[in-house]
Amino acid sequence: MSAEKIPDIIIGRLPVYLRALQRLSDAGKPTTSSQELGELVGISAAQIRKDISQFGEFGKQGTGYSIPFLMEKLRDILKMDRVWEVAIVGMGDIGHALAHYNGFANRGFHVSMVFDNDPKKIGRKVGDFEVLDTATLSEKIKGHKIKIAMLCVPAASAQEAADELVKAGIKAILNYAPASINVPDDVRVQYIDPVTHLQRMTYYL
Amino acid sequence: MSAEKIPDIIIGRLPVYLRALQRLSDAGKPTTSSQELGELVGISAAQIRKDISQFGEFGKQGTGYSIPFLMEKLRDILKMDRVWEVAIVGMGDIGHALAHYNGFANRGFHVSMVFDNDPKKIGRKVGDFEVLDTATLSEKIKGHKIKIAMLCVPAASAQEAADELVKAGIKAILNYAPASINVPDDVRVQYIDPVTHLQRMTYYL
Repeated sequence: MSAEKIPDIIIGRLPVYLRALQRLSDAGKPTTSSQELGELVGISAAQIRKDISQFGEFGKQGTGYSIPFLMEKLRDILKMDRVWEVAIVGMGDIGHALAHYNGFANRGFHVSMVFDNDPKKIGRKVGDFEVLDTATLSEKIKGHKIKIAMLCVPAASAQEAADELVKAGIKAILNYAPASINVPDDVRVQYIDPVTHLQRMTYYL
Repeated sequence: MSAEKIPDIIIGRLPVYLRALQRLSDAGKPTTSSQELGELVGISAAQIRKDISQFGEFGKQGTGYSIPFLMEKLRDILKMDRVWEVAIVGMGDIGHALAHYNGFANRGFHVSMVFDNDPKKIGRKVGDFEVLDTATLSEKIKGHKIKIAMLCVPAASAQEAADELVKAGIKAILNYAPASINVPDDVRVQYIDPVTHLQRMTYYL
């Protein structure tokens, strides 16, 4: 099936399956079933089988899925067969946390630049990074052909910073600012919004 | 339909619909369609109609959905007809960011306590909050009947902190630590994991 035809909602579930498979693999399991995966991620076994079958025949009736094989396939589909360079814009609390975050290692991403527009922060060290001036963002990001950015500026600056990122050639923005941003059709945006996660849980309280 | 029967995956989409409706409402729109909502959130119009119809007849063929009415219904379903008190555990970069986060206001949540176990942080002010000693967590959380916590400790401390939260009567944990945690069946966990969001976008790059 052509990649173009697969609904984004299915693509969005693949990283969740991959994370659950990593958990099972870390626990020493060689194989799994759609039932077991389903219990881990809160999605029905039938939905998981249907989602995965969009990309090929990766499991066998009766024996289930080989965990290393399915992880490799999902990584290939999600283009995790390489390491993606990521820029962080905005060195407040969230930007700092992401610059120090050790959850990227071995999962396909590497922070390679951090930016801020505050003269008090520019030139200072954050972990291994020197904070670069946002005024140089376009030049630096283009020069390194970075395609992914994490946007950690205040809500009021989010659209302006997003516009700069788009001009710099960024094609994927992970937006931590509590503000919607408008970008051209060829740029993807994902929102990190604690409220949507909290609301999903209050339903059950 | 009984609340018990609705799949969690549908519940998980309601906050996303609510956020998109807020955007449309902020833009001054009185009504919307499943097509328009679908384009905003990247989910098919048919799926949106099906999800919403699980809870009642909230739209009309031809005229679509009244935005204020649908928002009110979704808020009721998600128990956003009250303000939920939230505790933060771990006052590192992420904990700080959440204590200052202005995206909770008017969306049903209010941070009311922050904890850390570092003697250098205990007693200090973070915004309006005094950092409380994690050793007093159980007593304080029980005393205020708080049911929701955001877990922002390092990965290595995540399980221990989660165990403390469960003992204190917490029933919903938003986990920012890059580590899986095990909790009893009556406690919900959601993960804030930037990698799953990034991987959803790299598919398209």
